[in-house]
Amino acid sequence: MFITLEGPDGSGKTSQIDPLVKYLEQQDFHVVPTREPGGTDIGDQVRKVIMDLRNKAMHPSTEILLFQSSRAQLVNEVIRPSLVEGKVVLCDRYADSTIAYQGYGHQVNLKELQAIIQFATGGLKPDLTIFLDITAEVGLQRNQKSGKWNRLDDYDLAFHERVYKGYQTMMAEDPERWVVVDGTQPPEKVQEDMRRAILERLAQKVKSA
Amino acid sequence: MFITLEGPDGSGKTSQIDPLVKYLEQQDFHVVPTREPGGTDIGDQVRKVIMDLRNKAMHPSTEILLFQSSRAQLVNEVIRPSLVEGKVVLCDRYADSTIAYQGYGHQVNLKELQAIIQFATGGLKPDLTIFLDITAEVGLQRNQKSGKWNRLDDYDLAFHERVYKGYQTMMAEDPERWVVVDGTQPPEKVQEDMRRAILERLAQKVKSA
Repeated sequence: MFITLEGPDGSGKTSQIDPLVKYLEQQDFHVVPTREPGGTDIGDQVRKVIMDLRNKAMHPSTEILLFQSSRAQLVNEVIRPSLVEGKVVLCDRYADSTIAYQGYGHQVNLKELQAIIQFATGGLKPDLTIFLDITAEVGLQRNQKSGKWNRLDDYDLAFHERVYKGYQTMMAEDPERWVVVDGTQPPEKVQEDMRRAILERLAQKVKSA
Repeated sequence: MFITLEGPDGSGKTSQIDPLVKYLEQQDFHVVPTREPGGTDIGDQVRKVIMDLRNKAMHPSTEILLFQSSRAQLVNEVIRPSLVEGKVVLCDRYADSTIAYQGYGHQVNLKELQAIIQFATGGLKPDLTIFLDITAEVGLQRNQKSGKWNRLDDYDLAFHERVYKGYQTMMAEDPERWVVVDGTQPPEKVQEDMRRAILERLAQKVKSA
């Protein structure tokens, strides 16, 4: 089963992954946690090019294509083979982030983006996507408080609101795939909701198999 | 004016560029010679990832997206600004090579490739493309003799014949843009034909402006 985690910056996504992996392994699942960009040797080399502060001249199209090349490698080297072996792949952000941030946030043509994602992933979609739901405003406030301010947070609130609206639109288009978890709850409660969503989907998958 | 050079491996393309640049500069044109992949700082970093022999696990989709990211950077950082300044840009291989080698040669879906190229280039097409015409067979024989054998030449003759046929198809679809120069002639005669093709197109462009 292929599970992805999505949500605005500051939704607390990343800190939920470790306890989630440990829990699923206790339930005897083989779990492969991964991340984007990177997650492979070649992806890490691409990640370095994307992140290098000297590369200020990088054009937005270049950046998008680099992200997709890293994703193509991750899908073909890690995700697909792990799924074939019956493992659970847990990915911190995936194609929906590209659509939300580059498409809705930066207003890059959605059809063009979707075509490139289709090429990079060969059409591989998650079985389940958990959306950690907090408003753009709360996410930004959290990151300011925690000092985890990064380059992306510098975009204005209007940008982050477009991203949030983008997620809402994607969920409305494919409601079966998405489970919304209230990200404003205490972390333990968030973890509990995530575990329940995953176990329910795994049970469905076993039934339909 | 944006000029690209295309042709099978072994067509002698690359060695024609230096004398061509010198000649055009003598005619008082500002010429910007460039190459793919690379041609920019960021593109050179991407080129290193593509060429690194340790990256044997690179998936074909990853490679195509890396090529396109380097192209996006070259178009936006070098080619477009140079054209705006009225310079002549001379590029050793461009999008047609992707269509010929990846599309026709490796039989990657043409529509998907075209969509990615459109995104990377923003739709920028050459004003003139010179095709150095030699058959796939002669090109391979030349490279074998000269010892310039590279990884690409290892593909079988059928691959190189598909590439050649791909070029023929593209020329038939857009005959205005292409000029065919007989690559089996002595190098001086090839150079002469290329110069004539470029001057004629420049004169047309001045007339229509």
